[in-house]
Amino acid sequence: MNTIDNPIIDDIVWHEHEVNKAARSAQKSQTPCLIWFTGLSGSGKSTIAGAVEQKLFALGQHTYLLDGDNVRHGLNKDLGFSDADRVENIRRIGEMSKLFVDAGMIVLSAFISPFRTERRMVRDLVGEMEFVEVYMGTPLSTCEKRDPKGLYQKARSGEIKNFTGIDSEYEIPENPEVVLDTSTMSIEDCADAIISYLKEKGYLPAVKTALIEVI
Amino acid sequence: MNTIDNPIIDDIVWHEHEVNKAARSAQKSQTPCLIWFTGLSGSGKSTIAGAVEQKLFALGQHTYLLDGDNVRHGLNKDLGFSDADRVENIRRIGEMSKLFVDAGMIVLSAFISPFRTERRMVRDLVGEMEFVEVYMGTPLSTCEKRDPKGLYQKARSGEIKNFTGIDSEYEIPENPEVVLDTSTMSIEDCADAIISYLKEKGYLPAVKTALIEVI
Repeated sequence: MNTIDNPIIDDIVWHEHEVNKAARSAQKSQTPCLIWFTGLSGSGKSTIAGAVEQKLFALGQHTYLLDGDNVRHGLNKDLGFSDADRVENIRRIGEMSKLFVDAGMIVLSAFISPFRTERRMVRDLVGEMEFVEVYMGTPLSTCEKRDPKGLYQKARSGEIKNFTGIDSEYEIPENPEVVLDTSTMSIEDCADAIISYLKEKGYLPAVKTALIEVI
Repeated sequence: MNTIDNPIIDDIVWHEHEVNKAARSAQKSQTPCLIWFTGLSGSGKSTIAGAVEQKLFALGQHTYLLDGDNVRHGLNKDLGFSDADRVENIRRIGEMSKLFVDAGMIVLSAFISPFRTERRMVRDLVGEMEFVEVYMGTPLSTCEKRDPKGLYQKARSGEIKNFTGIDSEYEIPENPEVVLDTSTMSIEDCADAIISYLKEKGYLPAVKTALIEVI
């Protein structure tokens, strides 16, 4: 084959109409962001994140929810619970979330993430404008009473160590974007508070779009 | 607050209308998959992946492209180029791709991935039906002539070691879904071959949808 007939032999780079973050976001009619739920075990992080995802989906938005179920058994299955591994766990979740945001998605994440430094690390990674910190301020007494996985009981009996809220500290966020408390607010109200925040700050479109099937 | 007024105190689980992979895929009018480009440096992996992404975007599909630029400096920035780190690099890319596929996206990835075992690992992770291996069979002589990053020259001079195709093996895929060669095919033809494959196998919708703005 003649090189003159095949310009790509000399120049393999082809970036004319690159699909970028702005294009992907516009396609999805949203401003992508990471909604970072933080709080004690049993405070309602996954539940409220799931409820928000349902509401966003019903609005036609494009979301993805990251939590222990889909991260700890996959990407981070090589990590344990040492201090170094906990930091690496959150770092990877932050870096992956950043790519999901770059893909134009609204990402929801539900991890205890008890330390300010690790939450700050993710905020800096993703960028201030695309990080929405949601503090689940449900009191420890309520979380412990719920104890959905029986973990508080094990922590109290000493069967598990370094459990957040019992023998490991939870550092309350100083300036979270949203504060919720599932001991005094319903799931519905909590989810609506986040949707309202997203609308108010321009993450969701003011003008709705609809998918119409073309036959 | 009375517990009777607040049912969530006793049951924090709420999964009634869970947004799942099927729902996210239907929303995006596509069957999500991972299109895994493998081949020598300079064989055209990133270029063809970018061209395919542009065509899919123009068709209204939802994609994301993973390559060295957005992975090596972020999620995998702690990894070097030892054998163990190379395996871990591909494992994490595979696990992350799996989540993007779970999010309903068509994922394109462009990594040399020279070994059959690592490609098999990702295929097994993502699942046979959602893994499309694209072998860029561009001959070494063409890749070396292009040498877009000057890496072949450095490998030949001994400045860099274990460079695939020079002093490290590239294991040719045994049963790739698509085989391309940018020394004999144009970028356009390569991209079209993949789009045709995706249509033929049902990853793309037969009936097109259009976004109509509702005022």
